[in-house]
Amino acid sequence: MLTVYGDNRSGNCLKVKWLLDLMRLDYQWIETDVTSGATRSEAFLALNPAGQTPTVVLEDGRPLAQSNALLLYFGEGSRFVPAGPYDRARMMEWLFWEQYSHEPYIAVVRFQRAIAGRSADQIEPRLMERGHAALARMEQALEGRDWLVGEAPTLADLSLVAYTRVAPEGDFDLTRYPNIVAWVARTEAAFGIS
Amino acid sequence: MLTVYGDNRSGNCLKVKWLLDLMRLDYQWIETDVTSGATRSEAFLALNPAGQTPTVVLEDGRPLAQSNALLLYFGEGSRFVPAGPYDRARMMEWLFWEQYSHEPYIAVVRFQRAIAGRSADQIEPRLMERGHAALARMEQALEGRDWLVGEAPTLADLSLVAYTRVAPEGDFDLTRYPNIVAWVARTEAAFGIS
Repeated sequence: MLTVYGDNRSGNCLKVKWLLDLMRLDYQWIETDVTSGATRSEAFLALNPAGQTPTVVLEDGRPLAQSNALLLYFGEGSRFVPAGPYDRARMMEWLFWEQYSHEPYIAVVRFQRAIAGRSADQIEPRLMERGHAALARMEQALEGRDWLVGEAPTLADLSLVAYTRVAPEGDFDLTRYPNIVAWVARTEAAFGIS
Repeated sequence: MLTVYGDNRSGNCLKVKWLLDLMRLDYQWIETDVTSGATRSEAFLALNPAGQTPTVVLEDGRPLAQSNALLLYFGEGSRFVPAGPYDRARMMEWLFWEQYSHEPYIAVVRFQRAIAGRSADQIEPRLMERGHAALARMEQALEGRDWLVGEAPTLADLSLVAYTRVAPEGDFDLTRYPNIVAWVARTEAAFGIS
């Protein structure tokens, strides 16, 4: 059986869980609190020297990490990966963009507010600005479109919905982004996220 | 013919150029200075709303961005993408790690020092710390190994060498990392980087 070391407050971990659930893959979830130092133990660092969740241990004992790499590993061959090389590449483009231009702002602010308990005035304004820039880009991309890539849900939607749906916990007001609000509901329904 | 909008001081752009050269693909390079506002023009944002280089326009006029997504698009089917799903996933793991845990420190400090002209005392200490943490992780991963994944060079090596080779321009002393120094030379030779 698969073992998933994950923190169930983390979008990066939940996106992997949602895909495994949808694909009906058996796994053991080991709740791993990133604020407790659990990812800094010698045993954990032996599995993932980057000390990050999610970290998955495959049936044969080999470890694998990075949320979007895990989505690609488990999602390969599913209907959530476009067959055409261009749409596939656009999906990849969103996956890399998510980790570079979205997660470091939306997820980080949400962590600081909702998990670390900081108040609004303790948040770097630059993080809010860049988070809103990321949301504005998504809002524009979703204009007249149901999904980020092509005509069906892909791993790009799954990956990006993970922190976008909880952005309000970081005080990002999603009512400013009606295309995103509709897409979040659509994506949650498509992937069975509740 | 392909069109590549790239800044030739940017590792993210050069990694794509190196792969296109190695695969003998014809392209037109349009030098795009990221400090000049060129990536903020209406025409550029129509190609890539994220306003980032590299941005490639394919033969049929469709745009594609994100350096590592471009490596995967052009490198698919080459000897630089492992055939086995596990090694392929490990390569993906490094590609996502590069954009999340390496580029935002190594490339950013190098940009601030070598391109924006800041002095050492104008660099956030946290950026140096995290950059060294990234290098330490690579040093450990390369212990007793020639390549980051498996027994041959992959897109993971190509992607990571782009900013690692110029890390000294950001005052990251690579002599502290002998495995990295040897791997940089090996990777430059494997991909014909001069």
